[in-house]
Amino acid sequence: MGFFSKDITNMDSLFVHMLQDIYYAEQQIVQALPDMIEKASDPNLKNAFRSHLAETEQHVERLEEVFRMVGTEASGVDCPAIDGIIEEANDIVGEVENKSVMDAALIAAAQAVEHYEMTRYGSLIAWAKQLGRNNCAAVLEETLEEEKAADKALTRIAMSNVNLKAA
Amino acid sequence: MGFFSKDITNMDSLFVHMLQDIYYAEQQIVQALPDMIEKASDPNLKNAFRSHLAETEQHVERLEEVFRMVGTEASGVDCPAIDGIIEEANDIVGEVENKSVMDAALIAAAQAVEHYEMTRYGSLIAWAKQLGRNNCAAVLEETLEEEKAADKALTRIAMSNVNLKAA
Repeated sequence: MGFFSKDITNMDSLFVHMLQDIYYAEQQIVQALPDMIEKASDPNLKNAFRSHLAETEQHVERLEEVFRMVGTEASGVDCPAIDGIIEEANDIVGEVENKSVMDAALIAAAQAVEHYEMTRYGSLIAWAKQLGRNNCAAVLEETLEEEKAADKALTRIAMSNVNLKAA
Repeated sequence: MGFFSKDITNMDSLFVHMLQDIYYAEQQIVQALPDMIEKASDPNLKNAFRSHLAETEQHVERLEEVFRMVGTEASGVDCPAIDGIIEEANDIVGEVENKSVMDAALIAAAQAVEHYEMTRYGSLIAWAKQLGRNNCAAVLEETLEEEKAADKALTRIAMSNVNLKAA
């Protein structure tokens, strides 16, 4: 996350640091998704990744809106967590040959990304409210709802594959 | 996660690799929590971390049970995601001086850990069911429920601090 913790002196600076963290993370996800779309075999999975790419591009814009609301220039900080999660996803994408195993691994990788985002947006929304920045909270909540929906859509695809196998 | 993707040829090997990933992660969490307990100021937060440490030690044992069920020796693989999440937590723990800001940052760090675990256990449970390993799924579900409860407890603590500030 690249928290420069010595610069975090109050909730405002903690909020801005976390914004920078998730701004970096969303940009990394925009870069990672096209490869995941290409590697996915299940057409439903490909579509889910495609719509999530479009959503993620919007999430970046919404974060820029929140930066403007707090009067800070939009910028990212290194985030070892999202780097690690994407590194794992790339490891999987690398060499698994069986298509349905690859799809299962891609879903797991994408859900790890979704959960990371859900927890960061959850903290940001709580802090925005604490700081009386309800306008920021409202924008961040739109994104959180989309992350939750994307996670649920992936679970549905995973479970339909489970049920298919069981049939 | 240390997926050696060329060794992942079927759902069984994907399942075992993910078990090794979360086994490593749970062990890292056991090592990280004592420092978080020490740094927390809010007594409710300290208690939540303490009970979660006891639970996490049990999660390690449950994973060993699942390894036995699938006839594989318990072992971990490097997991860059959890390493990154803990690295971020340590960064925060390092130098934030204000106690309530530190508590807020500790809650966020712990929730990032919880969400990582929730997503990994979620995938493992789906795959266990797909593989007809309902005995493994049942053990993993016990842990997943505890991770979800730990996450909710942290949200309650965070929100009670928000409401306190607002009062």
